[in-house]
Amino acid sequence: MYPPENFSLVLTDIYRSSFPKASNFGFLATLKLKSIVCLISEPYPDENLAFLEQQNVQLFQYGMPGNKEPFVKIPETSITQAIKTILDPANQPVLIHCNRGKHRTGCVVGCIRKLQNWNLTMIFDEYRKFAAPKQRALDQQFIELFNEDDCWCYANDMDLLPLKW
Amino acid sequence: MYPPENFSLVLTDIYRSSFPKASNFGFLATLKLKSIVCLISEPYPDENLAFLEQQNVQLFQYGMPGNKEPFVKIPETSITQAIKTILDPANQPVLIHCNRGKHRTGCVVGCIRKLQNWNLTMIFDEYRKFAAPKQRALDQQFIELFNEDDCWCYANDMDLLPLKW
Repeated sequence: MYPPENFSLVLTDIYRSSFPKASNFGFLATLKLKSIVCLISEPYPDENLAFLEQQNVQLFQYGMPGNKEPFVKIPETSITQAIKTILDPANQPVLIHCNRGKHRTGCVVGCIRKLQNWNLTMIFDEYRKFAAPKQRALDQQFIELFNEDDCWCYANDMDLLPLKW
Repeated sequence: MYPPENFSLVLTDIYRSSFPKASNFGFLATLKLKSIVCLISEPYPDENLAFLEQQNVQLFQYGMPGNKEPFVKIPETSITQAIKTILDPANQPVLIHCNRGKHRTGCVVGCIRKLQNWNLTMIFDEYRKFAAPKQRALDQQFIELFNEDDCWCYANDMDLLPLKW
């Protein structure tokens, strides 16, 4: 069993990882995923698409740039849309991934922790575990300043609060 | 919500963390724990005992030393016993903790990953995330050499394999 790098369970039926390679497909099959939320903009590889089709896994692609000094910032609307897709029980079990599973994925997970009312210290502590040694202050600032009202309303309307563990 | 340091979900209904303090009790209450598996030998603090009683959480204490150069080694029997208690659905949701949530807890989680057939590289990668910057080669060697046959038989007899995510 070869999990992708930076693989972890975020909440029951919500996983995170780096970009899965063919060597990880055997492991991924055991998760019985219903969908994948991919945060990169580039076309999804044919090999991965074939695996998803064979496993009947739906792909949601929310392409976004990572936060980069000085002027590149993840669009909040993309994160909001990704989070709604992730939280929708109809799409779970779901795997969130970008390339390394560090920055964009870390921002999404950090924003989900805000919906769980975690304090920022512990959100950043988790972010840094997965981003190390490439943690970015910009990502942590993004999480801190992210306006989660829209996600909050969605989760509330869907009767998902408090988020189940 | 203040999760304890090094808090994370290991598998559904199995959590890990550092030693919970009073400031974490509010957060812990949301987990609706049925039990706690504590890996340190010292008496459990009165404040924590009172919280467990109030929440009707059972305490299993498997005191063990951490692996330390040159001659201190975690007893395999203690880890085996702890793992059986953790895997028993009757005790879940369960929280595993030691003092820092790094070494003894990391060894237990690493041995659980062996039961999931993870390859050692990814087991060690997860271990180091939580143990950093204090990762110990001895702990990783302990995980590698741990004989999981007894846990395996137990999980098989209890019809728990493959371990559910």
